[in-house]
Formats: sequence, structure tokens, C-alpha cells
Amino acid sequence: MLDLPFLPFCFFLGGLGFVCVAFVSAWCQRWRGGFAWDGSAQMFNWHPVLMVTGMVVLYGAAALVYRLPPAWRGPKFPWKVLHGALALAAFVLAVLGLVAVFRFHNDHGTPNMYSLHSWLGLATVLLFSCQWVAGFSAFLLPWAPTWLRALYKPVHVFFGSTILMLSMASCVSGINEKLFFSLKNGTTEYKLLPAEAVFANTLGLLILLFGVLVLGALARPSWKRPDADSPDSCQVPAPLWGHAGSR
Amino acid sequence: MLDLPFLPFCFFLGGLGFVCVAFVSAWCQRWRGGFAWDGSAQMFNWHPVLMVTGMVVLYGAAALVYRLPPAWRGPKFPWKVLHGALALAAFVLAVLGLVAVFRFHNDHGTPNMYSLHSWLGLATVLLFSCQWVAGFSAFLLPWAPTWLRALYKPVHVFFGSTILMLSMASCVSGINEKLFFSLKNGTTEYKLLPAEAVFANTLGLLILLFGVLVLGALARPSWKRPDADSPDSCQVPAPLWGHAGSR
Repeated sequence: MLDLPFLPFCFFLGGLGFVCVAFVSAWCQRWRGGFAWDGSAQMFNWHPVLMVTGMVVLYGAAALVYRLPPAWRGPKFPWKVLHGALALAAFVLAVLGLVAVFRFHNDHGTPNMYSLHSWLGLATVLLFSCQWVAGFSAFLLPWAPTWLRALYKPVHVFFGSTILMLSMASCVSGINEKLFFSLKNGTTEYKLLPAEAVFANTLGLLILLFGVLVLGALARPSWKRPDADSPDSCQVPAPLWGHAGSR
Repeated sequence: MLDLPFLPFCFFLGGLGFVCVAFVSAWCQRWRGGFAWDGSAQMFNWHPVLMVTGMVVLYGAAALVYRLPPAWRGPKFPWKVLHGALALAAFVLAVLGLVAVFRFHNDHGTPNMYSLHSWLGLATVLLFSCQWVAGFSAFLLPWAPTWLRALYKPVHVFFGSTILMLSMASCVSGINEKLFFSLKNGTTEYKLLPAEAVFANTLGLLILLFGVLVLGALARPSWKRPDADSPDSCQVPAPLWGHAGSR
């Protein structure tokens, strides 16, 4: 396989993640009336922004922590903390994103949880919460036995990629659904492909590109941390971990 | 990792694929008026059935061919032919599925290719066509040099999984979109979650489960053909290939 270096790829991916967040924010600001936290349609607008930022971009960053070359050296503990912290930040944004849509629905008398998008999206966030709690318990708390970590690690890795895939499918179905809801009238019908539709469709494709590149990077053997198959490293910070990057 | 045997998993997956096809067929037959090939709404109904059968179930079967234990023994050529033939069958069904929706749109004066679902779906089928032609040229035609096969193989594997992911996202967004289109009136509004909505939402989740299990099986190291990392096997049938299964 071509010897693609990780860091330039990582900068490209960071830029692409930034573009995804910028696109979803610009969509809601330019065409959907901007943002508020008051139960209005402006409150709903936080839903796509927080979900894309949390469940796709921050989640992808958390997933790739162990592929960073500095993470290959020295003790693993600080990188585990970074991985867990980024995942927790992603989870908090996702929960706020759910609050935004539930409050908007409730304030407008709209039922919750009927569309396939909502079923899939909530299932994805619930899976993610289980994944975070199980990962924290097994890999960050000190009392999990090595055999349990070895048993759970491939499961954690599998669900890590799976949750990102489900997030991508949730985002695509959500953007599609929102455009059918919003673009109904006269010259702005979705089927007439107004500028907003082109913009938001492009956002959907960019999210998929970002997710596919993260999954490709995770699957690439030469980018895996060399000890990736060992049961686990010590969960207690070694005295030298502050110098891990200087070796 | 737990030592899960491939064959029982494969039977379960086959059953799940059958259930997906049965569900999408039953949805269109029971609630959407059945099937025809005349430009009517009944012609549209072939679209979900052919896409799920082709781009998810048959595609998944094609992807898993090399994981079958008999494929680990003897020459690889007959398994390559089976892989290519199943992928070609999947592609033919996908093209027929596209014909069904384009003809329905054209006969009703509905624009094509405006929704994110349509952009993603068409991009997925186009990617699949490139993947099939490149795979056929590199792995089944006899004149591709070994270095080219070695270079292309990880790309083929990466796009193989990517196309399945994109198919899953296409199906979910398509089912979601179709339910918003169809369930609009009185007691059958989507947001009131009538039986059809529960049934089709469940279909969407089953498709995702099938796709995730296929991707998990593809990623599982112990299920990979032992020579998976060799550049390639001979593309000319060896004299013994008819006995490959009897060794």
C-alpha cells in the first residue's frame, strides 16, 4: 500500500472536520434563522450543529488519538485520558443536541421518537453512552483485570467504528428529513434544488467523507499503535509520562 | 476475543438478510400497493426492494465469500469468480432499482436527483461500478501485474467496506424519506407511528444490523483467508480446483 504519512492526513482531516462544523452552523444561521435556547425553531437549530460537532467530528478526533505518533511512545495512560475526555465532550454535546430537539418538539406539541432518524439517532447515543461507561470502567479504572481488558478491547474497537457509522447514517437521514420539512413553499421547494438544498446536501456528503476517512485511518494497519494487540498498558501514570513526547 | 465460529454466524447472517428482503417486500406489498413495471407507484416499489436486495444483502454475501472456510483451501480463482458474479448480480439489481425510481419520477413529472438520499445513493452505485470494473480488471483478467494487484488490493478492500456503509446510509435515508412522503393523511401520519411506520423503521434497523455484522465479519482477523496479505493467487484455474472442497 502507498506509504501515506499520518500527520498530513490528520491535518487534512482536522480541516475537513472544521469545514463540516462550519457548514452545519452556516446552514442554520443563513437559512434556518440562527440560534436560541428558548424552545423555538432557533433552539432546534442547535440539534444538527451539536450532533455533527459531537457525534462526528469530536468523536472522530477521540477515535484517532492512539494513531498520533506521540501516543506511540511512553505510557499509554495520558492518551487514554485524552481519548476518554474527547469522547465525554462528544457525549455531552450529543446530549445537549438531544435536549434541543426534545424541547423544541415538546414546546410545539410535536411527538418525539417516531421517525427512523430518531430511532437510529437515539439508539446511537445510547450505544455511545454504554461504550463510554464500559470503556471508562475497563480501561481507566485501576481494578479491571487484564483478562477482562483483553476480552473487551476488540469489542470496544468494533463498537467504536460501529457507533461512528451509525452517527453518519443518522446525520444523513436527519439532514434529508430536515430539508423535506423546511423546503416546502413555492420557489424554495426541495425538489427545485434551491441554494440551501445544494449547501445542506453537500454538508451530508462532507460528513460521510469525514467519517469514511476516520474509519479508513482506524483500519489502516501501519497507523495502529505498535502495542495495539497487547492486552493493555498500565493504567497508573508512570513517573516519566510527562516526558513521553521528548523521547 | 471469544472464538466465534464463522459458519453459524454465516447462517444467522443469511437468515437476517432473508428477513431484510422479506420485510422490504412485505412493506411494499402490504402498505404501498404491490408491484408493477409500468411507471406507476407500484413501479417505484421495486426501488427499495431491489436496492436492499442488491446493494445490501447480495453485496454483503459477495463481500464475505473469502471468509467461507472452503475458500481457504485450494486455488482462489473459483472464489474470485463467485465474488465477482455475486457483486455483478448485486450491481444489476441496483441498476434495475435505479431504473424503477427514474421511470416513476419521469412519468410523474417529478424532478430526479435533488435529495441528499438521491445524491448519496447514485454516488454509491457509481462508486460500486468503478469498484467492480477495477476489481475485474485487476484480479480476474490475466494480464494485471502482481505489483499492481498488491497495490490495488487494500484500496479494493477499503472501498468494499465503504460502499456497504454508504449503501446502509442510503437505505436509512430512503426509508425515512419514503415514510414522510407516504404517511401524511389523518390517522396514518408518520408522527402518529402507525403500524407501517413501526414496520419500516424496524426494516431500517435490521438493514443496519445486517451491514454492521458484515463489516464486523470482514474486519475480524481470525476469519480472514490465511493468504489474505499475499499479493494475489494465480488467476488461472489450477487443474485441481474442482476438488478444492474435498481436501
